[in-house]
Formats: sequence, C-alpha cells, structure tokens
Amino acid sequence: MNANSLLRISDLSKETIFDILHDALAFSCSQKDWRFPKPTLVANLFFEPSTRTHFSFASAQHQLGARVENFSAQGSSIEKGETLYDTVKTFEAIGYDAVVIRHSKDEYFEDLKSVNIPILNAGDGCGNHPTQCLLDLLTIYQEFGKFEGIKLSVIGDVKHSRVAKSIKEAMDILGGEVRFSGPDGYVEHDEFYLPIDEAVKWGDAVMMLRIQHERHGSAMQMSKEEYLEKFGLTKERAAMMQPHAIIMHPAPVNRGVEIDSDLVEAPQSRIFKQMSNGVLVRKAVTRRALGYKPFDQEEA
Amino acid sequence: MNANSLLRISDLSKETIFDILHDALAFSCSQKDWRFPKPTLVANLFFEPSTRTHFSFASAQHQLGARVENFSAQGSSIEKGETLYDTVKTFEAIGYDAVVIRHSKDEYFEDLKSVNIPILNAGDGCGNHPTQCLLDLLTIYQEFGKFEGIKLSVIGDVKHSRVAKSIKEAMDILGGEVRFSGPDGYVEHDEFYLPIDEAVKWGDAVMMLRIQHERHGSAMQMSKEEYLEKFGLTKERAAMMQPHAIIMHPAPVNRGVEIDSDLVEAPQSRIFKQMSNGVLVRKAVTRRALGYKPFDQEEA
Amino acid sequence: MNANSLLRISDLSKETIFDILHDALAFSCSQKDWRFPKPTLVANLFFEPSTRTHFSFASAQHQLGARVENFSAQGSSIEKGETLYDTVKTFEAIGYDAVVIRHSKDEYFEDLKSVNIPILNAGDGCGNHPTQCLLDLLTIYQEFGKFEGIKLSVIGDVKHSRVAKSIKEAMDILGGEVRFSGPDGYVEHDEFYLPIDEAVKWGDAVMMLRIQHERHGSAMQMSKEEYLEKFGLTKERAAMMQPHAIIMHPAPVNRGVEIDSDLVEAPQSRIFKQMSNGVLVRKAVTRRALGYKPFDQEEA
Repeated sequence: MNANSLLRISDLSKETIFDILHDALAFSCSQKDWRFPKPTLVANLFFEPSTRTHFSFASAQHQLGARVENFSAQGSSIEKGETLYDTVKTFEAIGYDAVVIRHSKDEYFEDLKSVNIPILNAGDGCGNHPTQCLLDLLTIYQEFGKFEGIKLSVIGDVKHSRVAKSIKEAMDILGGEVRFSGPDGYVEHDEFYLPIDEAVKWGDAVMMLRIQHERHGSAMQMSKEEYLEKFGLTKERAAMMQPHAIIMHPAPVNRGVEIDSDLVEAPQSRIFKQMSNGVLVRKAVTRRALGYKPFDQEEA
Repeated sequence: MNANSLLRISDLSKETIFDILHDALAFSCSQKDWRFPKPTLVANLFFEPSTRTHFSFASAQHQLGARVENFSAQGSSIEKGETLYDTVKTFEAIGYDAVVIRHSKDEYFEDLKSVNIPILNAGDGCGNHPTQCLLDLLTIYQEFGKFEGIKLSVIGDVKHSRVAKSIKEAMDILGGEVRFSGPDGYVEHDEFYLPIDEAVKWGDAVMMLRIQHERHGSAMQMSKEEYLEKFGLTKERAAMMQPHAIIMHPAPVNRGVEIDSDLVEAPQSRIFKQMSNGVLVRKAVTRRALGYKPFDQEEA
Repeated sequence: MNANSLLRISDLSKETIFDILHDALAFSCSQKDWRFPKPTLVANLFFEPSTRTHFSFASAQHQLGARVENFSAQGSSIEKGETLYDTVKTFEAIGYDAVVIRHSKDEYFEDLKSVNIPILNAGDGCGNHPTQCLLDLLTIYQEFGKFEGIKLSVIGDVKHSRVAKSIKEAMDILGGEVRFSGPDGYVEHDEFYLPIDEAVKWGDAVMMLRIQHERHGSAMQMSKEEYLEKFGLTKERAAMMQPHAIIMHPAPVNRGVEIDSDLVEAPQSRIFKQMSNGVLVRKAVTRRALGYKPFDQEEA
C-alpha cells in the first residue's frame, strides 16, 4: 500500500490532519492556482452512485491540472467477473498515477495491499469516508479557528452513517466534543446521546444526517412530515440554536424530511459551503497522495 | 439567473443573435484557435439521451481549452431523489464555471433562478433547443448571407418538434418566412401550412424533421415506405426543389423514412455541415456565457 | 477510409509492424514525453464492455496530450436507431480528429469506408483486435529481441478468440511459430495442435486465453476446478515450462480457471507487463493515425 493513500480518518495523526486542513485553506487563497508541475493522470472508480463526491474529486483534479478518467462498474470487465484487485492493478499497469475509489464493501482496500499507486478512499460500505470528514472539519475550523472545546451535535441515522463514525473519531483526536441524537434504533442511548431539542441547543455546530426515507421511512412507520416534526431540524428548532451556531449536512439533502427546506440556504447554514470545502480538501489530499509535501513545509 | 445564460431563442434580441452568428463565423476562420485565457471548468448534465448535442458541446468546450465533465442521471444522486436545483447548485458550489443541461421537463430552468453560474440549455421537454436553432440559422446565413425574405419549409412532425417551434420564432425576429408541412395531426392547417409538394418547391431551404417512427409510425398505421412516399423527401421531390435550394435536417436521420438515404450526403444537403456549424455556435454561446464580449466589440 | 486507420493486423506489412513496435519502444524511453504539437481531439466509441482496452487507449491519448471523450451506446442516439455510419460521420463533422471503436459486429468498419478521419479498431466481433496483437508482439519482442524462430503456445478457447486468430497471422508474417491447445471443440486438431502438456513445454511464450466460464463452462459440463486441472496453467504445468519461457494472458484473468491465481504475478508472468505495453502500442498507433511518421524516419 502506498503510504500516501488516504483510507481511514483514524489512520491520520493530529499533525497530518492539520497539514491537510492548512493546505486546503492555502488552496482557497495563496495557492489557488497551484498545478501539478508534470503530467498527472487520475482515475475515479465509482462502484456506487455519487454526484457530489465524484464530481467534487473531478473538479479538484481538473483544478490541479490532472488528466481525469471516470470509470463506473457498468460497461466494464467487472461485469466479466474481474476482481477489484485486478481492476486496480490494471489502472496501475496502464499508467494512472492515483485512483479514487468508492465501493460498497467495508474496507475494500484491505484487498488492495499489493497496489503501489496511492488510493484515495471516497467511501467504503458503512465504514469510512475520510474526505467527507475532512471537509466537515475544515468547515468547523474555518468557523471557529480551533477544535478544542468545540461542540458538535450529529442528528439522524447515526447507526448507518459513515459520516457520524468518522467525525467522532476525528473530533476525539482533535479535542472537540460530539453528541448524537435521532430516532430509537438509529442512535445508541449511551453517554453521548442527547434528546433532539437538547442536541440542537448544545451544539456550536448542528449536523443533520440524511435519512434514507425510501429505506427507513416505512420501517419506522412514520411519514416524512412526522419525521421532520420529531427528529428533523424545523424552523422552531433552528430558532433554539445558539446565535453563533451553524447548520451542517453532508448532502444530498431530503428537503422537508431531516431539515426544513427553507433552512438549506439560510444564513446559518454551511451546507453549500461544505461542498466548496470538499473541493479544497480533495485538492489537498490528492496533492499529498502524489507525494508533495505540505505547502508550509516546502523548502524555499 | 446569470444574464449570460442561454435558455430560449425568444429571449435573444436580433442584435444578440447576430453577435452569436458572427462569433461562430469568426471561430471558423480568424478565431479558429481562440482559447479561454484562464482555467475553465464546464459540466454537461444530460438527463436525456443525445449523441450529437452532447458531443458537439464537448467538442466546442475542448476546442476552447475548457476542462469538461459529463454527468448522466444514471449513477448519480438524482437516483437518491435529489432535486435538479440541488444538483445544479452542487456543481456551482464545487467550482464549475458553467453547466449545459438537457432535461425532459419543459422549461426546467424556471426552477433554477437562484443558480448563479450560466446555464446553457441543450433542450428542454418539447420546448426549446436554442443551440439547434442557432446552428440552423448559421447554416442559412452562410448560404444566403441574410435572412430577410429567405423562405424556409419545415416538414414532418411539427407539433412535437423543439426545432420547428424555435426556428419559426427566430425567423420571425430576423425577417425570414417559414411554412410547415406534414401528416394530419402533426401540423396545423393554418396560414403557415403548405401541402408537401408545394412546400418542397417553395423553400430556399427545406428542413425535414425526424419522425420517431417507433412512436408515431404505428399510430399513423403507416409503413416507413408509405411515410417516405407521402411525407418524406424522395428523390422525385428533391428534383422539384429550386436549383439553389438546400436540404437541412436536425439529425439523427431516419434514412428511408423522412428522407431518401441517398439524399443525406447529396450536393444540396447541408446535414453534416449543420453538425459542424453546431460546434461553432456552441463555442460562441459558451464563450458568451463565460462573460466574454463579441469578438468585434472587443477593445483593441 | 483514412489510410492511417488500424483495422486488421493482416493489413500491416512487416515493415509497418516493426515501425509501430519501434515507436512503442521509443515511447518507453527516449520519447516518453512526446506530445501532439497541436490540439487533438479523440473519441472512444465502445459498444461493448471493456476496462483494459478502453482505459488503456484513454491513458495513451492523455499521455499524448490529446483531449478525450468517451462514448457508450447507452444514452446515445444509437438508442434512437441511428446507424454506426451516421454516428461516426457525426464525430467527424463535429471536429474529432480520430475515433477508437469497439463493436460486436464482425468487421464493422466495412460500413465505414466513406469516413475520412482515421479509425482505430479496438475489437470487432469475434474477428480482429489489432492493438491487443501488437502489445503481445511487443511483449515477445522485448523479451527475445526477435520473432524468427520464436515459439508461441496459445491455449484455451482458440475458436472464439480474437487474440488467437490475430497473433497467428502476425507470427506468420514475422517468422515465428504458433501452436494451439485447448478443450475439444474449442481448438482444431490440425497440424498446429499440441496436447496441453506438450504445448506448455514447447513454447518460449505460453499464452493462456480467457475462458468465458459463465458461457462455456456449463456447456462443457465441467467445473472450474476440472477445467484448470485439464486445460489450465496449474503450478505443476508451469514447472514444466522452459526456464526462459514466459507466461502471457490477454486479461481479464479468471483466476483459478485458466490459470492458477498464484501464477498471475509470478516472476515468469508478463501479464501486467502486457497491459503497460498496451499503452505504449496505443500511443504508437494513435500517433501514426494522426499522420506522424515513425520517430526513426523523421527528418532532422
């Protein structure tokens, strides 16, 4: 496995997380126009649907001046029964410098230890989604300038969420605090649990998770309206938030289910800002994957 | 809505139409190698199948030096129920400078008024298809050097045609004349109607529309051969055309249905020329969308 | 038909084959960074699934500095019944400088004689796959420095193989020898036949073909294990190979069917090397298609 791969947020030291965040911030200002000094070829291998993550990586790669190819399982040798390992080794053999992978299998990269080119994990099963986590961290860091003592409420289907798991790990490393809320069965009632209204009041940032209503809704015997009322961010609940607090969501949003539609672009919302931050973070981890040092550690 | 968007042909003034046509002509000669002076990222969002329009836009974008990403509804968050608005706002948030959209919903762009990046409409429902219209205009303008008094016959399924509607609007603005012909039920018998043989003789340009035989053929209880004989451009009918008159078709062509296969590449046909003109026009509207002034209005 | 098209290996003279192989070798060293001196736009039209060939062409094109568009039959006007000829003429009309085509129809290019841009055949029906053949030749040439007297064993489903047919033709031109082996019904018992164990011992190169087990396995009433035992390259058989002999496979590999999984990356295997060679060969034929002379025939 290439040491510059990005697989799990928990693989990263505190220092590395800050290096990535500082590089991402540099990409928003002083290093806006930084491009790879030599031809660089990257493939995005998406075995599951995704708009945001896929095109955000593509945007980042294009901005870095890389050549980009997009691969989907449909119309490929995967349909002929080829293993993921052989597919990725093929991309290595035919000259790609790095691959971005989203796959439904938990920790699929465990099968890819003999791959030499860097792998950027764009989501695996119900497990990891490190660039999503990094963009959430960047959004918090931009807002508050630190993580020590920052309170983050995460609300919704915590149990099936790649996002919830990763952000908790990261905030633990960085000195922030996390609490969870949501419907019974989708969140543990442990020391990190808060009832919905308390969670909304408590957080410096309130992160609503996507409800896969088509999957869960009927299991809960609950209409969309009822879900919003009981566990979503209504305008009433948003009014209980602290004046400085922000709204976050990993998107795509179910408007009117986990969040009132009008709040998506409200002043305290950072939902589209998170998407922009996703590109900055992906530029940083792609540059890192290709072996470049953090900007502030470069020799003069 | 970004003011440089291109949504409907009827939104354009006579001056703007000529600006676009003149820029398109410039791209065929003096400005052949013009490229964006700075990195430009464009996404093509196609929610309906299209070869010609999609790859013609892509060719135009590549020729302009833009970075291009292609998005199809399959394998995207659209499958997760995301709205068109949220999808397009996502592309804006992640750094795309413009989007090209084809969608089956009539005037889908009415939902996109809060989008800030320019939108280029590549076809909506049964409504508008402005770049198709502009390439038709360019083909006529190249041939005759003017629109005043130019006669255009449009023949086929006028009722369901984006092309027919747009070109009539445009020719009205520009001083040309349009007549329609086709099977009963697919064309109004109003003051603009001509029987097929008269329409063929009347036009300086004879534009055959695509018949979706798989859809309409059986409804009309008519074989392909019978359709060609009654409403298509046969060799016999082509011989009735004026010597200077040209054949047009928006393609893809049903060879042997609306037009005799041998006429597709006949000397008086401009069908493949229209496709080449499509790229010129799309370069012009893309350059315009990104905020550049017409070539002949640039300061020295 | 453009004279620089690449359709069938049997269209190439011995001199042209060596020109291509020498250019491919140049791309691996002295000409590593060669790029088209002017903007070049290439489309990959794949009407059948393929990972390796498709992305290998894309990698080659990107490395040459070309702009690349990928087209699949899904979501295209092909679904509207457009002919292959009209589709390819469209790409010509809208400014593509060359097209790469894979299609299920045998010698589909016979319909494309009036196309003016060069066509690179990426596989047609059960017929030709010239770049696969060229990469096999490059692999043999790299290893042995010549073809005269080189012995190649081809083992598996010879009858349905594009690869087997092409490599025999090429080796005949170049002075090498080929023998075939495989299950009854999948290989002729003629003067070129050898039983499996003899074929393995005989070859300087042993090329295993992919078994489409899902299609053939049940017809043969044979399990995967039984196929490997009777007709595959087991470790026992690999041990019978000559010390200098190499293992080849066009991939994707069915691990444990036509070849023991452990042999895929064994020291005598050139399977991933073949993939890398595929990019070199595709750079050479793409450069040739665009009208450039072989490197060693360029004027100073």
